[in-house]
Amino acid sequence: MTRTFPERIRKIEISGIRKIFESAGPGSINLGLGQPDFDTPQHIKEAAIAAIQEGKTGYTTNNGIPELREAISRKFKTENDLTYSPDQIIITAGASEALHIVMQAMLSEGDRVLCADPGFVSYAALAEMAGGRAVGVPLDNNLRIDVERAKALMDGATIFVLNSPGNPTGAVESKESIRAIVEYAADAHVTVVSDEVYEHFIYGKRHWSAAQFGDDVITINATSKTYAMTGWRLGYLAAPAEIVSQCIKVHQYCQACATSISQYAAVAAYTGPQGEVAKMRDEYRARRDLLCAALKKLGFAFPVPEGAFYAFVPMKPALAERIIASGVVIVPGAAFGRNAPEYARLSYATSRENLNRALEKIARAME
Amino acid sequence: MTRTFPERIRKIEISGIRKIFESAGPGSINLGLGQPDFDTPQHIKEAAIAAIQEGKTGYTTNNGIPELREAISRKFKTENDLTYSPDQIIITAGASEALHIVMQAMLSEGDRVLCADPGFVSYAALAEMAGGRAVGVPLDNNLRIDVERAKALMDGATIFVLNSPGNPTGAVESKESIRAIVEYAADAHVTVVSDEVYEHFIYGKRHWSAAQFGDDVITINATSKTYAMTGWRLGYLAAPAEIVSQCIKVHQYCQACATSISQYAAVAAYTGPQGEVAKMRDEYRARRDLLCAALKKLGFAFPVPEGAFYAFVPMKPALAERIIASGVVIVPGAAFGRNAPEYARLSYATSRENLNRALEKIARAME
Repeated sequence: MTRTFPERIRKIEISGIRKIFESAGPGSINLGLGQPDFDTPQHIKEAAIAAIQEGKTGYTTNNGIPELREAISRKFKTENDLTYSPDQIIITAGASEALHIVMQAMLSEGDRVLCADPGFVSYAALAEMAGGRAVGVPLDNNLRIDVERAKALMDGATIFVLNSPGNPTGAVESKESIRAIVEYAADAHVTVVSDEVYEHFIYGKRHWSAAQFGDDVITINATSKTYAMTGWRLGYLAAPAEIVSQCIKVHQYCQACATSISQYAAVAAYTGPQGEVAKMRDEYRARRDLLCAALKKLGFAFPVPEGAFYAFVPMKPALAERIIASGVVIVPGAAFGRNAPEYARLSYATSRENLNRALEKIARAME
Repeated sequence: MTRTFPERIRKIEISGIRKIFESAGPGSINLGLGQPDFDTPQHIKEAAIAAIQEGKTGYTTNNGIPELREAISRKFKTENDLTYSPDQIIITAGASEALHIVMQAMLSEGDRVLCADPGFVSYAALAEMAGGRAVGVPLDNNLRIDVERAKALMDGATIFVLNSPGNPTGAVESKESIRAIVEYAADAHVTVVSDEVYEHFIYGKRHWSAAQFGDDVITINATSKTYAMTGWRLGYLAAPAEIVSQCIKVHQYCQACATSISQYAAVAAYTGPQGEVAKMRDEYRARRDLLCAALKKLGFAFPVPEGAFYAFVPMKPALAERIIASGVVIVPGAAFGRNAPEYARLSYATSRENLNRALEKIARAME
């Protein structure tokens, strides 16, 4: 058999992160993972178990159960000062599917999608799978979006992806930058897609939602990071009605609905006590302080990340390889685009004990 | 704001089925739903609850947990006489996502996808969302694929979608038809996508898997119908390695992985006792007999469906409308393509009591 697969799919690469995981030796300490090491809070698990026992195991409406969309509408109001009605919200299989259906619904062949480089690998891949063309937006020395250079790329683009706090950088964009990008994008008729999945993991600064500064914004979020629920596949998008009316068609056919049980769990997440989120944030902050202080002592020079759970550290590829070979999984910067080959991402979504053990190995790999 | 959404998305319509549900009066008897009315079997629920309690709530590998892919590999061997290694299987969010990633991974702009008309609405929609062109394959008087006319359409096509037992028809294709289609497709370099989600609901005939008759076949299945698990969103595809290597890229970025909890539930489904499936089959059969006998008594003439849980009945649109207005949700044939505007689909995935009540209303609507 000789098949010809479409160019837009053939050119997509399996994520470099996955390859590193597969090549890591057994017993390696994993600073590569982009998921919380915490367990899903107990009251959320109990809501899911109740849904299973009560037989809430059939299809839901395509856009998600009303009580969840209502809870998320309230969350947007109280946490983000955003007004999205429940009808403007689509519940998805994680932020991944939300990003996917946005790209599918918005992009015609060749349409440009601007996203930070280095940035989260999925943005460019999903844009190109939909027939779009991903264009990297460079970062400044503090690993934040270079707003002036971003503006210079905006003319004629279709989507600008904003991700604050950012993966892989841990950078938190300022109110001024976000406002400037959203306002400039509005003038240029570019829709801003704001991926805010790390919003609750910010240390000493505050989060600003892009949709506070304009209407042509799609806000994407998920339970995955905030509530340590990556495996539940529960995310959502909120958008202007005319965008929702296109996205829901893609979602209806490619997914039908998000997992019903996860939807009931998410209702508990958004309407229940939020103490576990604060505890996780405090622990991430302590780990960040531990990791960054030790890396600086080892001679690495980098801006201390203010959000998410990553440190993005300048490092020659040869050293990154030696560290991986020594039994610490980290992700070389080449996995996140073209602009940061001499960096590596270290996740601190792992215990302080693991971080200390990893730091010892890193020190030895540098000798 | 004036946005231009891509033509391939704008032309997709929200499923007509959804519109009917939304327009149905309160208290209507629902013969419209394409999902089992049974509860998920208890041992499967217990496996899911155990997974939640044990904290199996993080990302899994993109293609799914090994024990599930191994269980499905064994299921293919014992139930379908098919040899697919675990590496040839991708666990997806229901058959919907499996169909979606196949279309995305296989279709270039304008590629033709052949699918039965009348047929399941998603095939054409997913093909066109991926840039392909859906072409309807006509059915014969028994609502089975017209094999000779199917062959005549095959030249130059990319995908042939086979769905036996079929939705909306309930038709079960013969071994001879399936073999003829698969062999002709192989010669024509057309990949057969075989959607076998209703395989366990066949009454008095047996199921033949398309992949028994050729290698260029993608087999799609799900726990949704077999184990009454529609809300769990757990399906899969099995395919030749080179197809898997393209599909996994789409899946990795658009989904990450299927819901972890649903994956552990599915392990219990495929490795546990199968008695509940037989019980559901027996009940569907009794309902089919009840519904079809009564419809024939009312004067409807149609081939008795041998599979799935649908009767597809010749009926003028005006009568279908009167029946819906009288409080029985059924789906007019226009929802399933162009070729069956004077039909309607009645689902018997509802209790005999509901069927009897619905039949009384239908009789009155015909007076």
